[in-house]
Amino acid sequence: MALTDESRPTDVALLTDLYELTMAQGLWESGKVDEEDCFTAFYRDHPFGSAYAVMCGTSDLPDLVENLRFTDEDIAYLGSLEAPAGGALFKPGFLDYLRNFRMHVDIDAVPEGELVFPREPMVRVCGPALECQMLETALLNTVGFQTLVATKTARVVQAAKGRPVAEFGLRRAQGPDGGMAVARASYVAGCSSTSNVLAGRKYGIPVFGTHAHSWVMSFDSELEAFRAFARTSPNNCTLLIDTYDVREGVENAITVAHEMEERGERLAAIRIDSGDLAKLSTYVRGRFDEEGLPYVKISVSNDLDEYTIQSLLDQGAPIDSFGVGTKLATCYDQPALGGVYKLAARRDPGDEGWTPVVKLSEQPYKRTIPGVQQVRRYMDESGSPVCDLIYDEAFMEGEGEARGTTLVAVNDAALVTSVAGMPYRELLAPVVRGGSAVAPREPIADARARCAAAIDGLDEEYKRFLYPQSYIVGMESGLARVRDELVRERMEQAGSAMPWKAPKTRR
Amino acid sequence: MALTDESRPTDVALLTDLYELTMAQGLWESGKVDEEDCFTAFYRDHPFGSAYAVMCGTSDLPDLVENLRFTDEDIAYLGSLEAPAGGALFKPGFLDYLRNFRMHVDIDAVPEGELVFPREPMVRVCGPALECQMLETALLNTVGFQTLVATKTARVVQAAKGRPVAEFGLRRAQGPDGGMAVARASYVAGCSSTSNVLAGRKYGIPVFGTHAHSWVMSFDSELEAFRAFARTSPNNCTLLIDTYDVREGVENAITVAHEMEERGERLAAIRIDSGDLAKLSTYVRGRFDEEGLPYVKISVSNDLDEYTIQSLLDQGAPIDSFGVGTKLATCYDQPALGGVYKLAARRDPGDEGWTPVVKLSEQPYKRTIPGVQQVRRYMDESGSPVCDLIYDEAFMEGEGEARGTTLVAVNDAALVTSVAGMPYRELLAPVVRGGSAVAPREPIADARARCAAAIDGLDEEYKRFLYPQSYIVGMESGLARVRDELVRERMEQAGSAMPWKAPKTRR
Repeated sequence: MALTDESRPTDVALLTDLYELTMAQGLWESGKVDEEDCFTAFYRDHPFGSAYAVMCGTSDLPDLVENLRFTDEDIAYLGSLEAPAGGALFKPGFLDYLRNFRMHVDIDAVPEGELVFPREPMVRVCGPALECQMLETALLNTVGFQTLVATKTARVVQAAKGRPVAEFGLRRAQGPDGGMAVARASYVAGCSSTSNVLAGRKYGIPVFGTHAHSWVMSFDSELEAFRAFARTSPNNCTLLIDTYDVREGVENAITVAHEMEERGERLAAIRIDSGDLAKLSTYVRGRFDEEGLPYVKISVSNDLDEYTIQSLLDQGAPIDSFGVGTKLATCYDQPALGGVYKLAARRDPGDEGWTPVVKLSEQPYKRTIPGVQQVRRYMDESGSPVCDLIYDEAFMEGEGEARGTTLVAVNDAALVTSVAGMPYRELLAPVVRGGSAVAPREPIADARARCAAAIDGLDEEYKRFLYPQSYIVGMESGLARVRDELVRERMEQAGSAMPWKAPKTRR
Repeated sequence: MALTDESRPTDVALLTDLYELTMAQGLWESGKVDEEDCFTAFYRDHPFGSAYAVMCGTSDLPDLVENLRFTDEDIAYLGSLEAPAGGALFKPGFLDYLRNFRMHVDIDAVPEGELVFPREPMVRVCGPALECQMLETALLNTVGFQTLVATKTARVVQAAKGRPVAEFGLRRAQGPDGGMAVARASYVAGCSSTSNVLAGRKYGIPVFGTHAHSWVMSFDSELEAFRAFARTSPNNCTLLIDTYDVREGVENAITVAHEMEERGERLAAIRIDSGDLAKLSTYVRGRFDEEGLPYVKISVSNDLDEYTIQSLLDQGAPIDSFGVGTKLATCYDQPALGGVYKLAARRDPGDEGWTPVVKLSEQPYKRTIPGVQQVRRYMDESGSPVCDLIYDEAFMEGEGEARGTTLVAVNDAALVTSVAGMPYRELLAPVVRGGSAVAPREPIADARARCAAAIDGLDEEYKRFLYPQSYIVGMESGLARVRDELVRERMEQAGSAMPWKAPKTRR
């Protein structure tokens, strides 16, 4: 079994797409080792139809950068690879270069727990072209998935309206790391606990769990099983009552609850993991109340997500807490954020300024935003976010206080507005400088608090599940102009400003 | 960054749901340490509407079992946990017991690459109750996801009709292990290569990759970028032609292809990663053919899955190979197999025979199959699978040659048929005995060959994407009878054979 391990980070160098290394060789051989690039990582579309995403997954980046190196075993493996048309894939000189390879990049990122929106830079990596390139795969792998899970979690937690949500997804995750990432990101975004014990130990996340159906099946009767569990775990006693039949299960739980009372103990809760959770929880609540056991809480699980939780509470189901696994750990309804990492500017050795670049596509929404980007989040007087402005300091338009205050919406060029005089804060913060972390790893509680505050401060219209209001993300007018010029220039070169059809004759 | 590492397997013990450990404590304290359980892992519903799944993910099980132990750090962490109602969650005696904990289980599994069907045991774990319980989470985590990816891959590879499919999904996976699992499972199920270099090194999977859009954007013009790439990688030259405009890109690629010919080299292929792939590939094929470059192959990528590949080929798109990432690595349209691990039989110390057990549910399809199960796959004269029979040796009905040959379909009790005289083979094979691997790790090529043969031997009606024929999975009549009796007995205990409605008065 492959395992999570923070103490042996050397494998990071090969945990990448091969093309990062063939490109690196090309940059090295093309005399571009001293050229600098600036990449941004962003996503294009809302996950889950949400109007926002919760930034997560950057906490490992400094370690990744500091420890990225190629072992002798790595070099030997790369040296053994054959090119498709014969001969060695990698040249001895390049492999020698990799032997002493170290990272020198600068990384700026939106802090974990902060809200992010489509098209704006979540992470910016500037530095030697070859180094920036080598980070692509690992960065997208860690930031993309954790951001997705954190976003899903925020929605589930919102649906639960203050009731605790426990993360139970380890068994559905993509291997051990998947489970660790799920536990971490879901705690940042508001889950109250995880079932993943290793995540508890490594990240300090509260762990929760009691027993499974197999516990009940291990005894000759459910009552006997409940009694045994109450004896062994009187201080952590949640009984799973649906192994055979919930109506039988609740009577057995009532019996055990009364026996616990006689011993001065209390049955904490029951859990239901199948069937009609609204109907069953209502029935069970009624029985406990009739029996003078109003303190016994009701927990439910079984393929829950934000929609089933919302529906249960809309039906008035008397549920006290939720366990969420599959739908959270896999981000079932959209299991990929679709994050991308695109070159936005480059700089020749010795140059002061950066040259912005764009990528076009037959699909206009895939056009990138150029420049060494930063983001300003503008807020109203109450501190609620109103819009985000992507800018490149070098291209800002306007004079004095009006400088850089005209916003051109990324997805709606007709929306041009002024943000002059509004309060703002800069979103991207330094994480790595010259290949080294700028600060010790942030406690996970800080990211969690940041997320809670950010979601709390977001207006309700952005938070509803059905047709939420679109949050405005714009480019500063100077950057928008630069982008327009680059696109026009590229299109004129290609002579292809018009849509075109392929000839019908072929095939 | 959490990393894959096969050399430090001690974290496995805590990579589990907390309830496995609270139940373990319960079993220990209830004097059930010497009781034996038999669990089966299975899935209930076809993934992706497929009629079959491809077994994968058991290769790590022997290592997991052999190395599962609790470190001092693990014990200290568990000892520090507080119960919800106060006091320590784990008792000192139990923690002492964990200190010397070793696995003694027996595991039988369907070999990797073999086809499996809903409800039948994919893995069977028998041994001390507490040990079986502790394996649940890790087993579901590894087998569930790899089986899902292998199944998805088999479909994608089928759609590609012999054209190579490269796995590009690392950046969309759930962390490093997710990417490693994707690379491994997709190679078992027929992908020709992976972009994941570490998977190449660790598993011996062929790796493939050339360059990204950023390579083109790193140069002042696309032509210059293509020339530089051809110079650095003449033996691995696939040019990505859609950074700006495919019609411009193909002309630049043609120029470079001719220049390569003059040097005695050949442009291997171009790749298109956006836009209308049918239209663009047809246009590009035409231009290369017109220019006397029929050997330049066309590779495409961009959110491909079995349906888009099928559609492209149905349109006659002249595509030679596919790169598949997001939709494969996340199993986008069904990101969880929903595998479960259920107690099927138990045995008291000293007993010879096992006692079968079932789990009921308000949802009848969640009823489990009891017994120490094995599966026979029956074949027609050509070797094609016809049906699978789940049986427990102890309950087989019939005499002589007819013994155990009556099949009662799991999901359709009206379907009772005889398999007498048909050839069969047993599916579950020993993997672990008494806590130790029975054989060295199988080469991945063996699992891959097994998968290819299994899919090749499966009749077409099970392989179509739309409404495939359901494969028959049945219980041997003796096992079916035992199950019926257990269900009836449990229902009578609960007095709940009839559907019921919750009282309307509450709420």
